[in-house]
Amino acid sequence: MRKIDLNCDMGESFGAYTIGDDAAMMKLVTSANVACGFHAGDPVVMRKTIRMARDLGVSVGAHPSFADLYGFGRRRISGEKPEDLETQLIFQILSMRGMCGLEDHPMTHVKTHGAIGNMAASDPELAALCVRAVKAVDANLIFVTLPYSETYKAAEKAGIQVACEIYADRTYTDKGELTPRSEAGAVIHDPKQSVAQVLEMVLEGHIPTTSGKRLPVEPETLCVHGDTPGAVDICRALRASLEEQGITIAPFGRG
Amino acid sequence: MRKIDLNCDMGESFGAYTIGDDAAMMKLVTSANVACGFHAGDPVVMRKTIRMARDLGVSVGAHPSFADLYGFGRRRISGEKPEDLETQLIFQILSMRGMCGLEDHPMTHVKTHGAIGNMAASDPELAALCVRAVKAVDANLIFVTLPYSETYKAAEKAGIQVACEIYADRTYTDKGELTPRSEAGAVIHDPKQSVAQVLEMVLEGHIPTTSGKRLPVEPETLCVHGDTPGAVDICRALRASLEEQGITIAPFGRG
Amino acid sequence: MRKIDLNCDMGESFGAYTIGDDAAMMKLVTSANVACGFHAGDPVVMRKTIRMARDLGVSVGAHPSFADLYGFGRRRISGEKPEDLETQLIFQILSMRGMCGLEDHPMTHVKTHGAIGNMAASDPELAALCVRAVKAVDANLIFVTLPYSETYKAAEKAGIQVACEIYADRTYTDKGELTPRSEAGAVIHDPKQSVAQVLEMVLEGHIPTTSGKRLPVEPETLCVHGDTPGAVDICRALRASLEEQGITIAPFGRG
Amino acid sequence: MRKIDLNCDMGESFGAYTIGDDAAMMKLVTSANVACGFHAGDPVVMRKTIRMARDLGVSVGAHPSFADLYGFGRRRISGEKPEDLETQLIFQILSMRGMCGLEDHPMTHVKTHGAIGNMAASDPELAALCVRAVKAVDANLIFVTLPYSETYKAAEKAGIQVACEIYADRTYTDKGELTPRSEAGAVIHDPKQSVAQVLEMVLEGHIPTTSGKRLPVEPETLCVHGDTPGAVDICRALRASLEEQGITIAPFGRG
Repeated sequence: MRKIDLNCDMGESFGAYTIGDDAAMMKLVTSANVACGFHAGDPVVMRKTIRMARDLGVSVGAHPSFADLYGFGRRRISGEKPEDLETQLIFQILSMRGMCGLEDHPMTHVKTHGAIGNMAASDPELAALCVRAVKAVDANLIFVTLPYSETYKAAEKAGIQVACEIYADRTYTDKGELTPRSEAGAVIHDPKQSVAQVLEMVLEGHIPTTSGKRLPVEPETLCVHGDTPGAVDICRALRASLEEQGITIAPFGRG
Repeated sequence: MRKIDLNCDMGESFGAYTIGDDAAMMKLVTSANVACGFHAGDPVVMRKTIRMARDLGVSVGAHPSFADLYGFGRRRISGEKPEDLETQLIFQILSMRGMCGLEDHPMTHVKTHGAIGNMAASDPELAALCVRAVKAVDANLIFVTLPYSETYKAAEKAGIQVACEIYADRTYTDKGELTPRSEAGAVIHDPKQSVAQVLEMVLEGHIPTTSGKRLPVEPETLCVHGDTPGAVDICRALRASLEEQGITIAPFGRG
Repeated sequence: MRKIDLNCDMGESFGAYTIGDDAAMMKLVTSANVACGFHAGDPVVMRKTIRMARDLGVSVGAHPSFADLYGFGRRRISGEKPEDLETQLIFQILSMRGMCGLEDHPMTHVKTHGAIGNMAASDPELAALCVRAVKAVDANLIFVTLPYSETYKAAEKAGIQVACEIYADRTYTDKGELTPRSEAGAVIHDPKQSVAQVLEMVLEGHIPTTSGKRLPVEPETLCVHGDTPGAVDICRALRASLEEQGITIAPFGRG
Repeated sequence: MRKIDLNCDMGESFGAYTIGDDAAMMKLVTSANVACGFHAGDPVVMRKTIRMARDLGVSVGAHPSFADLYGFGRRRISGEKPEDLETQLIFQILSMRGMCGLEDHPMTHVKTHGAIGNMAASDPELAALCVRAVKAVDANLIFVTLPYSETYKAAEKAGIQVACEIYADRTYTDKGELTPRSEAGAVIHDPKQSVAQVLEMVLEGHIPTTSGKRLPVEPETLCVHGDTPGAVDICRALRASLEEQGITIAPFGRG
């Protein structure tokens, strides 16, 4: 496999507040996960972000979250009725799809944001809820998620196409999960090591784990960050390194 | 003309907060203007309201507003970029249409809420902005608004179908506008007088003004209130009075 | 012990939204826990509620919550930095105290709201955090909380005076905790049984548990609800029953 | 007069969103107007900002606004009950004062933010409302505002001390008001011209107007911006230029 998509969270500005340099990142990535106004974003930001993506040929997906602007969707929230949470996700996906339609740029995918994404990755019920929300809107949407996660399993079970996502700057446990940030060695700070990990996953088809194991993987999209210091330069270097190895950077598509 | 629609603002509850008795009102009206989450409403409320309307054969329209939950959309807001305000309205109409599609109950109309509706009625630029927002989503949507208003003129100019709206409990100036609430005699408190005014408008085709003039009108929808004390009883009595006079209560439709 | 305070959550309206009949409840209770704008309430509601309490001689306390208007503070939230959560609580207590000072009605107590209260009751770290927030504002504030809870222990450990709170309509486990609502028999629906339980706790000084045990208790305040159907009538009857038994209804005070 | 205060709006970050480089600006100014959570800011940001100010000897004031996070307090809002708006301002001033007390750094002043400040400057009733809100909290607070404004007059009439504020980068009309941004020549882009204007106002005691007139002024504080590109460098250069001319940069104080 010699092709990979680069996905990045975008459209996370809100009102007078700006996060990330979307204009620069949009030139480097092939998929944009656009905030839906629940953890970040607003209609004006959504529209502007979709237009930028469309004009640069970047795929747009919905990036739904818990309703939590103050916590930027990073607070772990429980205690809601599941059907209410599902409706909140549906609303976000639907309204993003509507805005994409307005700008003649069909929405391709969904990637959950922050706490709800992390929680669903290891919670079968929440994973199934997220997948139901995607399917309720459009069974042809692609669900971007980690391999070896409950969300991955739930999507497969529901017959929703998954784009298998990998990380350059995070290490993996033997279960194929990201090493929790609370543990040492969770984050890869060395750019060379990051590139090496991605090449191994893309070219050799396996995930290296912290204990030295190798787990099979067929990566379709690589998550890059837009809101960290030096994000644009890091992404540009990563992209160049992948292209040097003959890897094509292109959006994932319907199988 | 012996037919009239009854429209009511609905879906204005939010989270733990309830406004109005939507379940009771939904049985009395023929069109529901559903809040879009900007002045009131949330995805769960929207979905529940649309389902109720669908099950009772009530038409659903978007009821967009300024972004102003705290002020319930009643604060007059200016100073935004017009294109940003337009995008906010588009977002609300689009997302309501999306939710209606989800529930297989096609959205029929748009009625602006509170301060933006009042301001647009007498401001040609804001009126044109509101109409552009409707048209951007779907040129087949019907715009519910007052006769003799800038919004009415703007919709006609843009080729958007209007449903001409009348009030039972408000008096009219010689310009055909509602008497401002700040003036004496703006509100009709006597139910009999309310019914008489509606009958005059529906059966005789003119608006009685406070100075005694008569302005021609072809009313298609009567606005009823759901959030005032005794709202359900008032609406039930009004509906019965109209039916007694042989007036059919039915949704307005595409001309 | 023949005296008890009645406390009720109040000031939970927001903007155009109303919850509960505070004007009626205020005449029946002796302490009001007033929402601080994080799960409910706003400055106008706070001020109005404080004035009502002052004019009726009702004690006012702050009723702080997670920052969660949409969820009415009932969603369980984690993942925030503890020091940030502590600052949020401090802010709420401080600003309520400020508003009380404005109206010449000194604030007497603090009672945490909803999810944060429930979580802290069984989480020693969160309990200690809540108590630190109270103490940071004023070490003379009284902390209203359940006996046999982590919050009770944390307050005692920190030297903060506690007002021991009991419930009329909830049953108790052998640990002295409220039976979780998810379990059968958690809620007492029979008013007579409610009164009997309160009398047993107030007059005999012990909590009856679901297994038939008796746990010692020195109740100082009884929690009554203002936002349930028939709340005012239920409270009036409860108050009358207690007074018939010679129990004085009066605010708790500094020991 | 050879002394001037430099004031800057600070603490306008919110949750995950950052605006301005407060840490750098705090080293250059002598007064910080701190956002109160209504247009920007949150308890964590407020506390952090107050601590920075205290540690650097910078005076802290409340910077209250309309309740308008989405619009960053820049949307012009009307239609609220005056007493409700007054209570909202009081709440903001009170809670900021509370947070300052918590950090042992007494609050010195109030400066209204954005749209409400602009509107009050030319609206006697709104100006009087703002001044009443300040006085309701503490008649010893200093009100920072423009000379020749309705707010200036209202504060003087109410016996509230004013700190007369000037701008370096804005021109003035013959009425002593800032030239509206909608007009050509409203903003001074040339740093040398900015410095020259400030020196004229501080050293010679008059405001130069666009028509060439000179209006008497006794400036006490110069407004500097923290959220524009290059803000820190611009402020550093301005400060250096003033100090070169022998002007002392120091907080305004009680007269």
